[in-house]
Amino acid sequence: MIAEIITIGDEILIGQVIDSNSAFIAESLNSIGISVGQITSIGDTADQIKQTLDEASLRAELILITGGLGPTRDDITKKTLAEYFGSKLIVNEEALSMIEKLLTPRGVQMNELNRSQAVLPDNCELIPNRFGTAMGMWFTRKGRHFISMPGVPYEMKGMMTGFILIQLRERFRLPAVEHRTILTQGVPESHLAMRLEQFEDQLPGNIKLAYLPSPGMVRLRLTAKGAEKQAVRDLLEKEAEKLVKIIPEAVYGQEDQKLEAIIGELLLQKNATLVTAESCTGGTIAQMIVSVPGASRYFAGSVVAYSNDLKTRILGIDKALIDKYGAVSRQVAGAMAENVRLLCRSDYAIATSGIAGPDGGTPDKPVGTTWIAVASPHKMICEPFQFSDVRDRNIQRTSVTALNMLRKLLLAEN
Amino acid sequence: MIAEIITIGDEILIGQVIDSNSAFIAESLNSIGISVGQITSIGDTADQIKQTLDEASLRAELILITGGLGPTRDDITKKTLAEYFGSKLIVNEEALSMIEKLLTPRGVQMNELNRSQAVLPDNCELIPNRFGTAMGMWFTRKGRHFISMPGVPYEMKGMMTGFILIQLRERFRLPAVEHRTILTQGVPESHLAMRLEQFEDQLPGNIKLAYLPSPGMVRLRLTAKGAEKQAVRDLLEKEAEKLVKIIPEAVYGQEDQKLEAIIGELLLQKNATLVTAESCTGGTIAQMIVSVPGASRYFAGSVVAYSNDLKTRILGIDKALIDKYGAVSRQVAGAMAENVRLLCRSDYAIATSGIAGPDGGTPDKPVGTTWIAVASPHKMICEPFQFSDVRDRNIQRTSVTALNMLRKLLLAEN
Repeated sequence: MIAEIITIGDEILIGQVIDSNSAFIAESLNSIGISVGQITSIGDTADQIKQTLDEASLRAELILITGGLGPTRDDITKKTLAEYFGSKLIVNEEALSMIEKLLTPRGVQMNELNRSQAVLPDNCELIPNRFGTAMGMWFTRKGRHFISMPGVPYEMKGMMTGFILIQLRERFRLPAVEHRTILTQGVPESHLAMRLEQFEDQLPGNIKLAYLPSPGMVRLRLTAKGAEKQAVRDLLEKEAEKLVKIIPEAVYGQEDQKLEAIIGELLLQKNATLVTAESCTGGTIAQMIVSVPGASRYFAGSVVAYSNDLKTRILGIDKALIDKYGAVSRQVAGAMAENVRLLCRSDYAIATSGIAGPDGGTPDKPVGTTWIAVASPHKMICEPFQFSDVRDRNIQRTSVTALNMLRKLLLAEN
Repeated sequence: MIAEIITIGDEILIGQVIDSNSAFIAESLNSIGISVGQITSIGDTADQIKQTLDEASLRAELILITGGLGPTRDDITKKTLAEYFGSKLIVNEEALSMIEKLLTPRGVQMNELNRSQAVLPDNCELIPNRFGTAMGMWFTRKGRHFISMPGVPYEMKGMMTGFILIQLRERFRLPAVEHRTILTQGVPESHLAMRLEQFEDQLPGNIKLAYLPSPGMVRLRLTAKGAEKQAVRDLLEKEAEKLVKIIPEAVYGQEDQKLEAIIGELLLQKNATLVTAESCTGGTIAQMIVSVPGASRYFAGSVVAYSNDLKTRILGIDKALIDKYGAVSRQVAGAMAENVRLLCRSDYAIATSGIAGPDGGTPDKPVGTTWIAVASPHKMICEPFQFSDVRDRNIQRTSVTALNMLRKLLLAEN
């Protein structure tokens, strides 16, 4: 079954609002085996809505529409759908009682605008809204299904999960679609692609591989379709295993795992603690670690020693060492990691020192030159990297590279 | 002039990625007086791409396309566009040298895939990519303009701001559209809306006010259209002044100023330095400050004292003080600010201590309870806040609130 999504609202076309509803709807549909062929965002204009419905129903059996169901004048979706489907607009008693039940506990007196929300086309099925007064509508015509939902994200999500997805599974025989995502760090997209070329060639026709890059990382997503869920899953499992075996050193996790959460788990397993000493990353690694709820169980803190003075004053790095090798050096990064570990009586430590740019580069150490050190009670690893000339990407790449170096050290010491 | 945006990528149709590119492009186009009529997201399929181009060019003069320009096999946009425009694919020497210049400093060996990125249609204009190997393409046919950009957001943004918007303004006569953005912190959107109700009512018909909220902040954007640039500007200037006078205490800046950059300027003017001592924000404030190029001139660093042990061990907070008042208290936040300031021999300091959640709340101090302190050589301000129950929003709101408190302190001491 092919679906299309239509989002209605001038605020999308002027770029005021990022359309996150479509991603949610698309993901939900895919998860029950319905493919989305197209997503179209249009303005609050009757002609454009009708035209877009015409075009979508030539390509798709199922059309999901969001937006334009509010009670104010610029919301014209309901009126337009009624015209499109030749409906009479009448008070729907079920909707009226739902709206009453919603407003009464909030102490809201029902006004004309609220009451107008219970006026619905006479030839649609009502989709209840648990969180608002704009009801959903399900129209059926010539084997095509048109579902209209409000644009408020949590109202739309309530309808999708509480009614629409359940009904779609009951009413249609849907194929199985499964995804597997493999998370990699440290190998550029183009290099991964070359190493995976043969793998891609041998993939069965119903499996697709996609590359999804972000600074320092590439997510590899395998998608498989088929008639039978378990068979699709088994096939996907087998191919995912093959893939991981080709690039084992690049893989750090699967699905929606976060590197900082994986490290947290490993530290908890060891009952160990972590600190960071950050120069060029300026607290970004600490901030990523702290973004994980419960990080206080293993993360003690960080010394962001941005100035050389702080490297000396708090971390106790010998000033002579900085003068001799420079702050961006194996010696200083290593000393930062070891000193912060001892100072904070922590088991593990990460340290970074680099030239994030745009200024500060030299012929010897151009912008992007970075040293990362990870230390444990037993070991210290200190590596140089040459990143790009874009400041925020350098900070991001340094941070994920450092976290992955720590992950490898934690695993090696298991 | 009417434009349409086409985003290409299976990852959008399966909902794995939220299409934020379209909002950026739409906002950019609107800012130079080009309206967006439709946004269409489709998969990596040649037929669908061609069909969508056909349809879009019936409705719009300008068609902007993102995605599908990577070097891997699932990226078919370039090949499809070459078919669509009857192009020959040839090595573009200019593109080749750009790609070389990009990769050489990174120490990346140019491989076949990189080289294939320099193969471009012979009948398009090259759009340089400063940040990646996928070049942009500008095709012209029958008075329609087709612009293809990579889907990686920062590469696309670089092309839009560095080339495309400039060229569109040069090549076409566009109506005058002017924007003024007023940046506020600390007052919720609904409260602003109430205070600005009368102001909105009196606005001339060609001026619109939009509320753009993010955690702890609301951007207020005034947009005016008209035939004559200077008249539009003058009108906008007058209304912006009125607006600021209604909510003066909430305004911290204008246009695309960043709070962390404003603070940097103020510190440079005073020739003063700043450090932070962060508990609940876990390095986020340091990371924001360091995101500004040149921050090393005034930012010395941070002690991220996430554990109480580090508060004592590095910052020298008396353990008895923590036991008596709790880490989330006026006393401890104040001591953190003052101690980090003295320890690092800095002029100014920020300290945060709060319960970001989801765990750690008590009936006395629920999740969201936060103390923020800012200190100078002459003054210390320490304030309590009750934020929400969402961890990442709490961290964000604490950080921007702290930065704004410091901004006010810096101004008060002028």
